[in-house]
Amino acid sequence: MDTQAVAAEFAALCKAGRFEEAGERFWAEEIVSIEPMPGEMAVLHGRAAVQGKGEWWYANHEIHSAETHGPYVNGDQFALRFHLDVTRKASGQRMQMEEIGLYTVREGKVVEERFLFRMG
Amino acid sequence: MDTQAVAAEFAALCKAGRFEEAGERFWAEEIVSIEPMPGEMAVLHGRAAVQGKGEWWYANHEIHSAETHGPYVNGDQFALRFHLDVTRKASGQRMQMEEIGLYTVREGKVVEERFLFRMG
Repeated sequence: MDTQAVAAEFAALCKAGRFEEAGERFWAEEIVSIEPMPGEMAVLHGRAAVQGKGEWWYANHEIHSAETHGPYVNGDQFALRFHLDVTRKASGQRMQMEEIGLYTVREGKVVEERFLFRMG
Repeated sequence: MDTQAVAAEFAALCKAGRFEEAGERFWAEEIVSIEPMPGEMAVLHGRAAVQGKGEWWYANHEIHSAETHGPYVNGDQFALRFHLDVTRKASGQRMQMEEIGLYTVREGKVVEERFLFRMG
């Protein structure tokens, strides 16, 4: 699958709310996941670590809505834009977040995902 | 200036419609500009080449509206999202385009800009 085909299918799964399935299907074994914050989840290597982050995130957030827009494509990269409305279970804090996921594709798999968060 | 400060000011100039000024102020001498299409403008190196592309673009398109959203930030990169409503002067074709500009910052300057276009 080329980048456009991966982008289209990855986006379709996210738009259907099937975020975990998108990862399971397209993450390369050597996936690198880069978040824009300091801390132990800032850079993760490998499917197991990235799946673990997802499990932590789903366990600790209540999702009120999750919208996916895109994909946007250039060469071996595609981007999606997410609008999330979630509550952190620990604090009860409800947040509306907007972020861009930037994905790098090699041989039909996502080898890097990088999230850029909306400022201000 | 750190990436967040560059992102904020670059975004503010674009939101004010001052796209060329944003480039003049923040493009590094060695800027690399990467567009998602084949052809001679796909990858350009250096301020003069990138400015030339901008001049060509402004000369050949009539801009009805240009909206900028963001910035989104992660590490040394930021992204902006653009909605453009333009007419190609040569063909008279009017197009609504959505794209993401992904910018890499080094020492307060943009050393790479990469555009991802909305599919479908």
